[in-house]
Amino acid sequence: MSKELTSRAEDYSQWYNDLVIKGGLADYSAVRGCMVIKPYGFALWENMRDQLDRMFKETGHVNAYFPLFVPKSLFEAEEKNAEGFAKECAVVTHYRLKGDPEKKGKLMVDPEAKLEEELVIRPTSEAIIWNTYKDWIQSYRDLPLLINQWANVVRWEMRTRLFLRTAEFLWQEGHTAHATKEEAIEETVKMLNVYAEFVETYMALPVIKGVKTANERFAGAEDTYCIEALMQDGKALQAGTSHFLGQNFAKAFEVQFLNKENKQEYVWATSWGVSTRLIGALIMAHSDDQGLIIPPRIAPQQVVIVPIYKGDESKPAIDAKANGIMTALKAKGIRVKYDNSDTSRPGWKFAQYELQGVPVRIAMGLRDMENNVVEVARRDTKEKSSVSMDGLADHISNLLEEIQDTIYQRALAFRNENIRPANSWNEFIQLLDEKAGFVSAHWDGTPETEEKIKELTKATIRCIPLDNKQEEGVCVLSGKPSTQRVLFARAY
Amino acid sequence: MSKELTSRAEDYSQWYNDLVIKGGLADYSAVRGCMVIKPYGFALWENMRDQLDRMFKETGHVNAYFPLFVPKSLFEAEEKNAEGFAKECAVVTHYRLKGDPEKKGKLMVDPEAKLEEELVIRPTSEAIIWNTYKDWIQSYRDLPLLINQWANVVRWEMRTRLFLRTAEFLWQEGHTAHATKEEAIEETVKMLNVYAEFVETYMALPVIKGVKTANERFAGAEDTYCIEALMQDGKALQAGTSHFLGQNFAKAFEVQFLNKENKQEYVWATSWGVSTRLIGALIMAHSDDQGLIIPPRIAPQQVVIVPIYKGDESKPAIDAKANGIMTALKAKGIRVKYDNSDTSRPGWKFAQYELQGVPVRIAMGLRDMENNVVEVARRDTKEKSSVSMDGLADHISNLLEEIQDTIYQRALAFRNENIRPANSWNEFIQLLDEKAGFVSAHWDGTPETEEKIKELTKATIRCIPLDNKQEEGVCVLSGKPSTQRVLFARAY
Repeated sequence: MSKELTSRAEDYSQWYNDLVIKGGLADYSAVRGCMVIKPYGFALWENMRDQLDRMFKETGHVNAYFPLFVPKSLFEAEEKNAEGFAKECAVVTHYRLKGDPEKKGKLMVDPEAKLEEELVIRPTSEAIIWNTYKDWIQSYRDLPLLINQWANVVRWEMRTRLFLRTAEFLWQEGHTAHATKEEAIEETVKMLNVYAEFVETYMALPVIKGVKTANERFAGAEDTYCIEALMQDGKALQAGTSHFLGQNFAKAFEVQFLNKENKQEYVWATSWGVSTRLIGALIMAHSDDQGLIIPPRIAPQQVVIVPIYKGDESKPAIDAKANGIMTALKAKGIRVKYDNSDTSRPGWKFAQYELQGVPVRIAMGLRDMENNVVEVARRDTKEKSSVSMDGLADHISNLLEEIQDTIYQRALAFRNENIRPANSWNEFIQLLDEKAGFVSAHWDGTPETEEKIKELTKATIRCIPLDNKQEEGVCVLSGKPSTQRVLFARAY
Repeated sequence: MSKELTSRAEDYSQWYNDLVIKGGLADYSAVRGCMVIKPYGFALWENMRDQLDRMFKETGHVNAYFPLFVPKSLFEAEEKNAEGFAKECAVVTHYRLKGDPEKKGKLMVDPEAKLEEELVIRPTSEAIIWNTYKDWIQSYRDLPLLINQWANVVRWEMRTRLFLRTAEFLWQEGHTAHATKEEAIEETVKMLNVYAEFVETYMALPVIKGVKTANERFAGAEDTYCIEALMQDGKALQAGTSHFLGQNFAKAFEVQFLNKENKQEYVWATSWGVSTRLIGALIMAHSDDQGLIIPPRIAPQQVVIVPIYKGDESKPAIDAKANGIMTALKAKGIRVKYDNSDTSRPGWKFAQYELQGVPVRIAMGLRDMENNVVEVARRDTKEKSSVSMDGLADHISNLLEEIQDTIYQRALAFRNENIRPANSWNEFIQLLDEKAGFVSAHWDGTPETEEKIKELTKATIRCIPLDNKQEEGVCVLSGKPSTQRVLFARAY
């Protein structure tokens, strides 16, 4: 096949790009920092999105849609949030183009169509949403408000990478309002657990649940909870965040409610989000030098059937048999494709579906048919086996579950092998440089030390794991006393 | 109930706004011309979107996602398209905010972060998509390309109305590429038929399929096909359009392919879209002075059950029975809600669900239970009947289909009564002013006459119906010869 891939050992970053582009997931666009999500990549996102959406609805949330634009005066209302995002805001200043009098056929911004107030393109929607909640919330009867939005957002990043960091990306953002602090914190943790369950069960990617340090918190949050995953190159990736926002936005937008005791109180808030970035995590966690490996539960195609014709006369018999298999698989809800196109040879197709990470490939030739078998190849282990056509659908259905589990267990073993304790600064540096992965180390709890460690090593505190063991120790850098270890890593 | 509605007779436009806002579909936002789609309205949109998406996929289309931004130089490449949309473009000129040195805590656009090239927020995506297709299409083997996108778009309208005309709106836009003109035209018509089927079968709204005149064509199209619906005030509403784009975009973006004869040819294009505007059409076509009427197939809730408690001791028995009914209805795939909240009385709930257009309301009290019946009320006809609990789920399931049909037949009868021929200018004006609806009249085929009629009457040619009868006649305005009647109306 013509689409040669860079290997991970050769250049991990180029390997990743090759997989995204040659695997047909996404492409660069003419707009700086923005990508095109191609049909295969979008089908993957649809499967992820639909499952998350089901989980949000099962936990009592409803969807809504808020404006793309945030007037500057609203954007700046919650100061920390505004400060955190100001540097990466795309800003609309005009609402009209007109013919350029100096260049025929060209357009220019019409200087007479300048907006009185500039509009920020939402980098996140707390401001516009809390400004709306003000009108929706009067009494405790209006609470809780459990709303999610699927949307595009824009953060003007200087260095972009397909899926991992793009100027525009797709995400969901939940924004909830509660009568009490306890209930808001409960919601924050509940949604963190939903994310963890989704990423582990559907994306086959183990995560560590934890809390961010003050330095790494979402701008405007009181606490940021996160799930952290480990990539094959030993770098960590933040896969989702859930924020307890306290009363910060309620105060900034004057959102009060009449409580049961007939007193005005500020509302308590959460927000939580995951994005198309998850696709980047998926690729980097599971794939290999031959291409993508996609867990069956979210794979756009779970099975592909490739016929091995021997002369035109073999076609009708093989096609008929393949259609029977298709029907049986579809009846089990399996997403299956029959590729009998004559534009490429079986070997090319094999490589193509390997590159695209289709979990199971079934090949069927004349001799197979005579023996009442097909060849079944697993993408994850590359094992091939000859399987009887009798009960094939059941076999495939079980195999897909087995593949899902194998991919997860492999990632879990890798992740667990790559959490290492460091008890001195030398050990800390050595582990980061030689082994990468998570380094579990004592830290004195100050932002200054955290900042210093980042400067010296590029490693950040990924999280303080939930239910962390409390133990006496001394900070790896400052030597000051510490009560618990935290997880450091270099990260995407 | 407290939410008083304006009646249609009193003020049709205010009635519409009341339904949208008090019915919980949408709300104004802090951003000029942009609306918030509230959870109930968004659930309605989700049902419409998901059904359309299934129909697109059944006809061989796949989804993808292209950037929100269009660099000005790409936007202006197809001149007619650019000219058509230039006046309503929101333009991003800067990518950063900074602290305002003169106003503490306030932000300002950072003048040093001016973009080299302005970015237009997509009013439609032909430009960015065809610039991408250039890289995806080399040979006839790459064709057809059948791609759809669900996205937000922005058109800076000066006069906006909730759902009907907003600066930002949600829509889908299909963009297909073909090897031949015939195939592209076939696709254009196929998607028009998909739209018509969706709007008639799911939204219960009869449409007239037709072709637009040159004046009313999409900017950059060779031909615009449309479906036109009639609202209760006699005004027409364009419910969807499907465009045959010829080779205009292929030429503007240099998209050629190697045909089977090994020659380079320009690609043929179509695009087609429907938007959240459809929700506006739905409301205005079916609803009444008591509130929304939503066809069952797309209703967020199809059935609501309201218990009529008589003292606390009646609750357990009624709740148990209601839960049994819920289970039976859900097993039939019916979207049902049990409203036993104690914050409002049954009468208030009845009015609320009437306002929100829930197709069927079931009320159950103690005496009903003793008689093994429930009270079933239809929203469309307001008929109430006492129905046995035995086989209730089947009854409701059939009733929902009957309601769907009744709503459609009512709209169809209204529409058919309101297409009237005019054979003279006086008759034409009189019909428009006294009866409204569609006026079927001869027109001389010139843009000048069409323009003049619009100036004089505010009526436009909604379409030349497909398979229009050819007949000799004279133009109602100019008296010049004409070969067919076309449909005029005042329109949204």
